Amino acid sequence: MANQRLFEIDEWKIKTNTFEKEHKRLQESLTSLGNGYMGIRGNFEESYSGDTHQGTYIAGVWFPDKTRVGWWKNGYPEYFGKVINAMNFIGIDVWIDGEKVDLYQNEIESFELELDMKEGILRRSAVFRIHSKTVRISSERFLSIAVDKLCAIHYEAECLTDDAVITLVPYLDGNVANEDANYQERFWQEEAKGAASHQGHLVAKTIDNPFGTPRFTVSAAMANVTEGFADESFQTAGMYAENRYTYQTKAGTKVSLKKFIIVTTSRDFPETELVTKGRELLAGILRQGYEEARRRHTEQWKERWTKADIEIKGDDELQQGVRYNIFQLFSTYYGADSRLNIGPKGFTGEKYGGAAYWDTEAYAVPMYLAAADPEVTKNLLLYRYHHLEAAKRNAAKLGLKGALYPMVTFTGDECHNEWEITFEEIHRNGAICYAIYNYVNYTGDRAYIREYGIDVLVEISRFWADRVHFSKRKNKYMIHGVTGPNEYENNVNNNWYTNLIAAWTLEYTLENLATLPAEKRRQLNVREDEMETWKDIMERMYYPYSEELNIFIQHDTFLDKDLQTADKLNPAERPLYQHWSWDKILRSSFIKQADVLQGIYLFHHRFTLEEKRRNFEFYEPMTVHESSLSPSVHAVLAAELRMEKKALELFKRTARLDLDNYNHDTEEGLHITSMTGSWLALVQGFAGMRVLNGTLSFAPFLPKEWDSYTFAINFRGRLISINVTEEKTVIELLKGEPFELAVYDEPILLNGRCERRTTDG
Amino acid sequence: MANQRLFEIDEWKIKTNTFEKEHKRLQESLTSLGNGYMGIRGNFEESYSGDTHQGTYIAGVWFPDKTRVGWWKNGYPEYFGKVINAMNFIGIDVWIDGEKVDLYQNEIESFELELDMKEGILRRSAVFRIHSKTVRISSERFLSIAVDKLCAIHYEAECLTDDAVITLVPYLDGNVANEDANYQERFWQEEAKGAASHQGHLVAKTIDNPFGTPRFTVSAAMANVTEGFADESFQTAGMYAENRYTYQTKAGTKVSLKKFIIVTTSRDFPETELVTKGRELLAGILRQGYEEARRRHTEQWKERWTKADIEIKGDDELQQGVRYNIFQLFSTYYGADSRLNIGPKGFTGEKYGGAAYWDTEAYAVPMYLAAADPEVTKNLLLYRYHHLEAAKRNAAKLGLKGALYPMVTFTGDECHNEWEITFEEIHRNGAICYAIYNYVNYTGDRAYIREYGIDVLVEISRFWADRVHFSKRKNKYMIHGVTGPNEYENNVNNNWYTNLIAAWTLEYTLENLATLPAEKRRQLNVREDEMETWKDIMERMYYPYSEELNIFIQHDTFLDKDLQTADKLNPAERPLYQHWSWDKILRSSFIKQADVLQGIYLFHHRFTLEEKRRNFEFYEPMTVHESSLSPSVHAVLAAELRMEKKALELFKRTARLDLDNYNHDTEEGLHITSMTGSWLALVQGFAGMRVLNGTLSFAPFLPKEWDSYTFAINFRGRLISINVTEEKTVIELLKGEPFELAVYDEPILLNGRCERRTTDG
Repeated sequence: MANQRLFEIDEWKIKTNTFEKEHKRLQESLTSLGNGYMGIRGNFEESYSGDTHQGTYIAGVWFPDKTRVGWWKNGYPEYFGKVINAMNFIGIDVWIDGEKVDLYQNEIESFELELDMKEGILRRSAVFRIHSKTVRISSERFLSIAVDKLCAIHYEAECLTDDAVITLVPYLDGNVANEDANYQERFWQEEAKGAASHQGHLVAKTIDNPFGTPRFTVSAAMANVTEGFADESFQTAGMYAENRYTYQTKAGTKVSLKKFIIVTTSRDFPETELVTKGRELLAGILRQGYEEARRRHTEQWKERWTKADIEIKGDDELQQGVRYNIFQLFSTYYGADSRLNIGPKGFTGEKYGGAAYWDTEAYAVPMYLAAADPEVTKNLLLYRYHHLEAAKRNAAKLGLKGALYPMVTFTGDECHNEWEITFEEIHRNGAICYAIYNYVNYTGDRAYIREYGIDVLVEISRFWADRVHFSKRKNKYMIHGVTGPNEYENNVNNNWYTNLIAAWTLEYTLENLATLPAEKRRQLNVREDEMETWKDIMERMYYPYSEELNIFIQHDTFLDKDLQTADKLNPAERPLYQHWSWDKILRSSFIKQADVLQGIYLFHHRFTLEEKRRNFEFYEPMTVHESSLSPSVHAVLAAELRMEKKALELFKRTARLDLDNYNHDTEEGLHITSMTGSWLALVQGFAGMRVLNGTLSFAPFLPKEWDSYTFAINFRGRLISINVTEEKTVIELLKGEPFELAVYDEPILLNGRCERRTTDG
Repeated sequence: MANQRLFEIDEWKIKTNTFEKEHKRLQESLTSLGNGYMGIRGNFEESYSGDTHQGTYIAGVWFPDKTRVGWWKNGYPEYFGKVINAMNFIGIDVWIDGEKVDLYQNEIESFELELDMKEGILRRSAVFRIHSKTVRISSERFLSIAVDKLCAIHYEAECLTDDAVITLVPYLDGNVANEDANYQERFWQEEAKGAASHQGHLVAKTIDNPFGTPRFTVSAAMANVTEGFADESFQTAGMYAENRYTYQTKAGTKVSLKKFIIVTTSRDFPETELVTKGRELLAGILRQGYEEARRRHTEQWKERWTKADIEIKGDDELQQGVRYNIFQLFSTYYGADSRLNIGPKGFTGEKYGGAAYWDTEAYAVPMYLAAADPEVTKNLLLYRYHHLEAAKRNAAKLGLKGALYPMVTFTGDECHNEWEITFEEIHRNGAICYAIYNYVNYTGDRAYIREYGIDVLVEISRFWADRVHFSKRKNKYMIHGVTGPNEYENNVNNNWYTNLIAAWTLEYTLENLATLPAEKRRQLNVREDEMETWKDIMERMYYPYSEELNIFIQHDTFLDKDLQTADKLNPAERPLYQHWSWDKILRSSFIKQADVLQGIYLFHHRFTLEEKRRNFEFYEPMTVHESSLSPSVHAVLAAELRMEKKALELFKRTARLDLDNYNHDTEEGLHITSMTGSWLALVQGFAGMRVLNGTLSFAPFLPKEWDSYTFAINFRGRLISINVTEEKTVIELLKGEPFELAVYDEPILLNGRCERRTTDG
């Protein structure tokens, strides 16, 4: 498996001087911009006739795409919800002496592309030949995080060698399609459009659907600022509006255009006011001017970085990777809108539909808990709380009691339509509960349980109680027919992880019920016999275990397999899912992502170091880490086990997963939800951060290759910074009250600054 | 589960006086006609605006419909081949005083519909009100088995109450769609058309496809014979050609039209000659006339019945059911074309694509062996022999050696696209081998092994040898990740049946290799070490077995289930697949069709009666028989075990599966391949016919409810009739040399006629 690196190593930038047409999609994914409200792949402003994936996505604007399956099975959802490719509002066509610029066709002399992570700005320039003249174009754009509805572009063009007629055509175009459309349908219809001098607007609405899900209307209002043109015109046609500027230029004279777009949607405003609202906002921006709008935007990025930057000294590749992940995560979600969640690809591609997966609870929550305000995580939890009724529908659809949270969703209703996932990958239900535990454990906000959490816990417990069955032969409760986190096996029995998290859910629910006021318990209508049953299941749950190997068994028949380790695999056949038949993958012993080890990671305090080591040494060598979610969990465990080499290898893999295209699919979009992995690997892994019973603890060590690392976390109203060098670990209380924490199991009252010798065990 | 019976009980007819609009599709399925070359659902000739499924299918004319899956998996086929709905050539529109007849709208006064199985003719008449006049129409049609390209219709209309202008418009219409089209595509394009006085033609070709599979051109040439019309016209428009006759009629005067259609295809003639060929054949038929064409057709049906009829005295429902099954089977396949196979729905619907499944080998072969000439079965075997290279491709696509015969196919290449079936339901490969054994065992034609069979056996053995893995822990060979015949479980390990038929294949192959001339073995390139491996696998195959229950276990963890019997099920929830979620079905203990018992059925001579009984008593009560293939195998075993009530119940279910719509899906088409089930249940079950080591044997018994049953079989050049009454069993050698057979294990030299007392054990 050869990795693929398009961009140079740089602390703060993603940059290159090479234009690789054959990897344009990959380049586009990696240079995606987002501001939580919307996102755009790194598409060019001007037309491009080669292979490209034009993609603009607006958070929460989705369409229910009619389910496509070979053979329908009862319980399948009717549609797959998808954040859909919205209108192209960045477009600026460029003509030189009447010929359209097209970097796929034009002979390129030089090229520069740079994503500035510190400022959240994408810059590009190119020099190329057209009509035997040499032309230079350049663009700079950002999606403002100060005014989230704003996209601003500064575009320039000049003919270096000759006089030339340059035409710039900034436009809005709603004639876009989803690459991922089950039936090649177009999802947008025109609602309104208009063009006038230096401005235009386009309003499009998602087409009607038979599933009763909401429709969305999106408006883009554009204003163009330019000087020195010889001719201006404007027009609309179809779902399209443009301004058109023609410039008679001398050799070496630049023409410059600033294009501002305000995107408003029916999620925030009445349909009828979308254009007006857009124009109002535009007017403000125009008064401000481009430079000021950019300044306000970069200012806020500076602030974000102050709070969340991770510094790794001694490894520039990792430094770049870690910052890239934080940058793209914050570009996707910064907690501003409680109706939103985090799609696995963010705004960078169409795979997985842009909807919510269990990734959020399992991978995003732990980082946002420490790297952002508690409200951000609480919003993520409330998202599920608000979907409880839908989750009950999902369970009922399968003929089961309680609540089954969906694999994929916008509304809480299940969208996924593979039986082995939809009906069987039910461990996700446990992750929802675990996130509640995680939040309460980290923040100490026990009121959340009382007000919201317990409702979810009770209904999920009801689900588990109905989903298990009792095996008379074994005198144990079992869970048959599941898919564990390792999706390279389907429909297995007694997946250790699923059984564990199910039994834990029952335990945690009972524990919390016991602390509730009687009134709340009455309200929840939990019967005594129900609780008895939960207790019985919890106590008599079956866990596959090998006495011989002293390990937990992934599922009933796992040890009957031909057990092979991944180092024996032919590198040319990696990743397996791109080279092997599904049949071969399912039967093999190769594990896609942490499964038994996921359980050990989540419930770290319940297992001894020896248990962790034995299971890690058995399972990790068979793990191919072909889920982007895999390396981080393993890195955390390897770090705890002080398997430095393995921990570093996996940390690198999670930190540079997209930048080095490890899984050979980044062209389809970035692995947003797994980007928390490098944060987790560093903070929970190398720094050994844990929170248990209200106590924050660290057990840091420094990989030999590094000089130092530094990060900051929020914890219960405090801001704490940790700096780890070979000799010492310095912990500083930057904000908040003094409190007691533990370093290497030793209690410390943190008041200001404290130092400890860094050890390696 | 309420069954549904639309038609009256009658020995030789399927008839009714009721027109049930809400069950039109079911009625259409049940009154389908076919002649091996083509088939038509029981559609009306005149237009019908209500719910209907217009379906005309031509054997071997198929289209590769682009695969539709949610998430692509490596190894999936690119298309699903489908016998596609071809042009509507039976159409005759009827107008009364300028208003179109439409039995969905017109008020019906009386209605008669009758499928005559003895003669292979469909008749229908209706009296209804239109424009306040009372009109009667009637039609009679057949698909000739004497001239297989011919469809002939005799249509009449009269106004009973008034003078009226009657217009009859016989037409050919290519504007047809498949109900089962993955992307709502139309599969036909126009090639040629024409209309002239009393005649017309239409030529359509399947549209191009990106998969390199052949295209087909189909021509229908029509001739119309009628008298007394006032006006004639003809025209074409789009993919459509018509003749139009207007009659000025007096009250009570019939107009009569005979419509003849010859269907020719590029499978048999050069494209350019299709119309000419059609016209030539038409000319001959016109010289003959309708009555003579019909006589030749019914004559041949008479002959078929003489050879193959089964008489059951004492139960008219069963009598009708058994004849119906034979009638529809022979309408689908009578061995005329070795390029064809038997689709699960024949020509009566679109489900399952009209392609070949393992049904053929497992269910059709045993009956055709005894009920038709050996060449018919040999043709079915050769069909697979000719697909050997494609089967090797299928295996290679999964990364496996040898040959994997497809689940669904036209060319040998796999068409099915559910991983749990395509990649896992590999026991089908065993059925291909078993059919070879079955054919050679029954006919004694050992030359077939040498010339064809061994090539197939060797490649399938190579597949099994690669598909097993060795479990070090158990010191046994295992087969993981399969779906057994019971499709209500997927992806199980060590399915007893699959392991059994895999090991048996290796044994049978080795056994046959030993008898081959050295030259042939060299040619096959079977190495010694390869054979050693096969022997080792055969000897050390793992078979799940319960010491406690003394039964074979369906698969590894089956006994861990919550084991429930089907009698506890709520009848309102049957069939389960229409009421339960797939999740619930998979986890339940309910069995769709014989699985362990399928193995015991096929290898009946290897198991004691006690073993059979224990396994039957354990598995049958959990079996819901929701595959049409299920009841027959169980009926045979129940009969052998002299569980008379159970045997009869299941026999009835297989005999009247469609007529009583047991599985609530006959509206989608008849269960053609399972129709052999009633023959098997009677001949192998009640009459206990077996062939072992060249010896034919019987062990008949007569259910108390019956007076007698009679059937005939072919065996090694002989025709033998068996008549069983309460007192005696009479076996008669109708044709061929005397030979030794066994009745109740007692050897008998059959020379003419012999009698034995019928016993019940």
